[in-house]
Order: sequence, then structure tokens, then C-alpha cells
Amino acid sequence: MSVLVVGSIALDNVETPFGKNEEILGGSASYFSIAANFFTDVKIVAVIGEDFPDDYLEMFKSKEIELKGVKKSSGKTFRWHGKYGYDLGDPQTLGTYLNVFEKFDPEIPEDYRDEDYVFLANIDPELQLNVLTQVRSPTLVALDTMNYWIENKPKELKEVLQKVNILIVNDSEARELAKESRITKAARIVLDMGPEVLIVKRGEYGALLFSKEGIFWAPSYPLEEVVDPTGAGDTFAGGFMGYISGNSLTSPESFKRGVIYGSVIASFTVEDFSVNRIFSLQKEEIDTRFGAFLKLSNLD
Amino acid sequence: MSVLVVGSIALDNVETPFGKNEEILGGSASYFSIAANFFTDVKIVAVIGEDFPDDYLEMFKSKEIELKGVKKSSGKTFRWHGKYGYDLGDPQTLGTYLNVFEKFDPEIPEDYRDEDYVFLANIDPELQLNVLTQVRSPTLVALDTMNYWIENKPKELKEVLQKVNILIVNDSEARELAKESRITKAARIVLDMGPEVLIVKRGEYGALLFSKEGIFWAPSYPLEEVVDPTGAGDTFAGGFMGYISGNSLTSPESFKRGVIYGSVIASFTVEDFSVNRIFSLQKEEIDTRFGAFLKLSNLD
Repeated sequence: MSVLVVGSIALDNVETPFGKNEEILGGSASYFSIAANFFTDVKIVAVIGEDFPDDYLEMFKSKEIELKGVKKSSGKTFRWHGKYGYDLGDPQTLGTYLNVFEKFDPEIPEDYRDEDYVFLANIDPELQLNVLTQVRSPTLVALDTMNYWIENKPKELKEVLQKVNILIVNDSEARELAKESRITKAARIVLDMGPEVLIVKRGEYGALLFSKEGIFWAPSYPLEEVVDPTGAGDTFAGGFMGYISGNSLTSPESFKRGVIYGSVIASFTVEDFSVNRIFSLQKEEIDTRFGAFLKLSNLD
Repeated sequence: MSVLVVGSIALDNVETPFGKNEEILGGSASYFSIAANFFTDVKIVAVIGEDFPDDYLEMFKSKEIELKGVKKSSGKTFRWHGKYGYDLGDPQTLGTYLNVFEKFDPEIPEDYRDEDYVFLANIDPELQLNVLTQVRSPTLVALDTMNYWIENKPKELKEVLQKVNILIVNDSEARELAKESRITKAARIVLDMGPEVLIVKRGEYGALLFSKEGIFWAPSYPLEEVVDPTGAGDTFAGGFMGYISGNSLTSPESFKRGVIYGSVIASFTVEDFSVNRIFSLQKEEIDTRFGAFLKLSNLD
């Protein structure tokens, strides 16, 4: 099995209390694909500029991540500059330079159009809708979005929500989308908008999976040190979608382990800048931490 | 088995988006004792004023909660006035009227001095130390405190911490006490201050139990509606201490179920004002919700 991801590939400047790094590999599709790749084959649709370093392309290739859908456009690669404070909470965005991403119009290669598992990373809901007209009959589509689209393209976003199976967002996004502060109530409202499953990422407080079948509560891994939170959400989604597509899962009950695997990969991601930690991560390390996750909420 | 609690009995005025109630039963010892009473016998040491309503005393008596250590002093009962915003987060304190509580000097009745399980609710650490000179050789002492004492009586608080087995505080209190924002690191620092066990209450994000044996992560119950959060922390402590004293438990491993029972009782507490919900709560409701808690983090 495999998963198709449509999202961004970026070059980031990131500053945290642990250091400052420039022109490092970033973007939702980058993080997602390296995470998902532990469990399944990954196909990326994204855009890069002429200045995108070959070394980074080689990183994807070394993992056999499929790049046929990564278009090189004339101009510069999308860049994001951000800075995290001491609490490593939401970063301050110092600059967003869309560059070639501004005209990103995802074109799904013909032989990707029958993909069963699709992840629409956080891009303009109009582009997400456009992708959904190109894929033929996916088994399962998961969606990410952000406050910007909730506020600025609510109509288009609601249209996408009616066409996807799973929404993966963070706590504040779920509350804002539902216009409701209590997360349990917000979840019910979001599920009424279309998706059968809502996954709420809560950073150090874990993650929640909501469906008609009930609620699953996943812990987060109690790390003593977080070096750079960038990419935690995208690698959570990558671990989750990688696991469920790699195992051809379709029922909410069977997604629980996917939520744990997503949390496992995200917990490694934040241990270093960019994709450094997960790029060198070994399958055994994932298994060991998965076991530690189970132990965290085990009563006996 | 039984548990001794030293704390406050108060009359509260509480306003939440769901209503406004005046002169309702409040105070840490009130909430704690009604919660703990589901699992064990409870003995209160506290002070009330001459104006304390007989009806409220009858409520304790109807539960066979022992009141020999509740002293009636001349003057008025301790009062707290608070208001919660729409998010039902930290309340705004509109007024604190210590009244007879200002001169509270807890005197442990002679036949309470051999109690094995003792809970020191959130009062001046000097008074907590004073209590510890009166109880002879308790098996297990648990402590609550708050930011005010962390800031204003750090020396006395650290002295108490060296003499107790369990500290039960909320997230921000643990971080402030340790002067460390990452909770896992903060927990290690707090455990170095004396207690063998640290329980961190995180409201809607659940609770964490830290000890040398590891970390246990408890979910919170995903309520759709919270009416009044007052007393959630004290009834968490009551459910926890009630369960572990009622079952004569002493090892951190065996405390896990206590953390769940604490969360269960707290989840009922917030469904209504004051002790209204837990006063009429039935044992079967507790068992049912305990089962729902286990299901929340159950993978299979």
C-alpha cells in the first residue's frame, strides 16, 4: 500500500532556545513523507524552486519517496522564518515567503490518480478541492487545515470537509472551526460538517480521536527536552496515515494504533531541528517508544 | 481504614456562565471529605464561624463524616467569591474573606493522632508543619499547596515537602515550584524536594502521576458541559486519597487506580455547583464512569 501527500516543501530558518538554523528542510510534505515512509510507500505532490538544494532531493530519494509529482518551477522555493520562545509553544512567524508556492496548482500525475490513501496537507482549501477532482475513488482522504483558512475561506473549507473522511487539526483549530470552546462539543459539531473521524492534536497534552464509535485518548511522550517543535503536527499525520495506509485500515476503531504511531514519530521529530532526528530514526526505536506509550496509560 | 483531612470549610458565591449561586458550601475539606467518603471513613479538622448553616453540618453528618475536629469559632465563616468566564478556566477572585479562617490553628483531636492516611489541603505551610508535629506516625501524608505559598512561604513549603509522601498540585503550580516549564523535568526537580510521588492535575487534559517507578498518564473525562469547576481539584484529591486509604495502598504502582478514581469524582463535581452533584452521587455511577475512563485509553 501507499499514501499520496499534497503539500509544501520549504526551506526554513528556525530559531529556538537551543539554536538557530538556516535554510533547513521544512514544509508539510517533507515532514509527512519521511514519517509515513516508515510504514508505507509515499508519493509527494508539491512544488520547489530552482534554488532547491540537490542534497535535500537526495534525502527523499535515499528513502525511495516518489518525487514524480514534485514540480520544479522557475523562481525561489517557499521559505518560512520562525522563532520559538522558552516555552516552545506557538512560534512567532518572522517571515513567510511563498515564492513558487504562491502559484502552486497541484497536478496529480496520471498514475497517482488511483491512490487509495490521500493526505491533503495544510494548503488553500480551493487547491484541496482541486486535488479531489483529480483523484478517482480514494478509499480514505485525510485533511489538515489551519486558522487562516478557517477565517478566510470558510465556504471552501466546509466544501472540502464534506468530501473527506478524516480531519486532523490541533486543539485551537478544532475549537475555532466549531466556534465552541469545549473540545468534546466542538468535536461533535465538526463531525456534523462531514468527516467521519476527527483527530485533535494537543501537543504535550496528547491527542484525541473522535468518531461515532466513541473517543480515544492518546498520551504524548513525556520528553524532558524539546529542541524544535516544527513539523510535529505533520509527522504526527505522517505516522498516522503511514500506519493506516500501510495496513489498509479503514475503521475508526483500527485507527487508534495509528494515533499512537503518529505520536511516536512526532515525539522523535521535536528532539532535533528539521527532519534530522527522523531521517536517521530506526524501526526498532519506533517499536521501543510505541511500547513506552502503551505503558504510560497502562493501569497494571 | 480512614483518612484525616485538614483544610477549609467555606461559604462560596460562585458565578459561571450557567448561573450565580450564593452562600453555597465550599472549601477544600468539604469537597475532599464528600469525595473520599465514597471509599473510606473521613475525619475533618477545620474551622467554621457561628453563622455556619446547620443544614450544611447535617449534610456531612448524613454521610457519617466525622466532625469532632471541626471547631466553631466566634465570628464569621470563611467566604470566597469567584467568577468563571466562558472558557471555565481559572476563575476571577472577586473577594476572599478569611474571617475565622485567619486564626485557624489546626488542633488534631487526640484520637485522630494515630491516623495512617493524612491529607493536608491547601493552607499555610506553617500550619501544615504544625499538623505534622501532632500526628504520630502516619503511613502516608499527601499535600496540596498553591502559587501563593510557593511565592510567599517557599522556605516553610520546602520544609513540609521533605516530610510528605505525595504532592498533589496542578500543572502551573508544579512548574512554578520547580522553576521549570517542561513538566517532565519539573516533576524530577519536585521529586528531589522530598515527596516520593507527584500528581499533576491538568484539568481537561487529565492527570500525571510521577514516581521513581515511572509515569502514569490518566485521561480526563470528556464532558460536553461543565457547570462549575470549583472543587474539581479537591474532589480529585478526595477520590484519590479515599481510594488508596480505603484499600490501604502504599506503593506508587498501586496509586494508578486512585488517580482514575480521583478523576472520576472530579468529573462529576463539575457537573453542578458546590457539592450538589457528588452529594447525591451513587456508587454505581462511579463504577460506570470508571469503566468509561478505562475505555478512553484502551487500544483494543
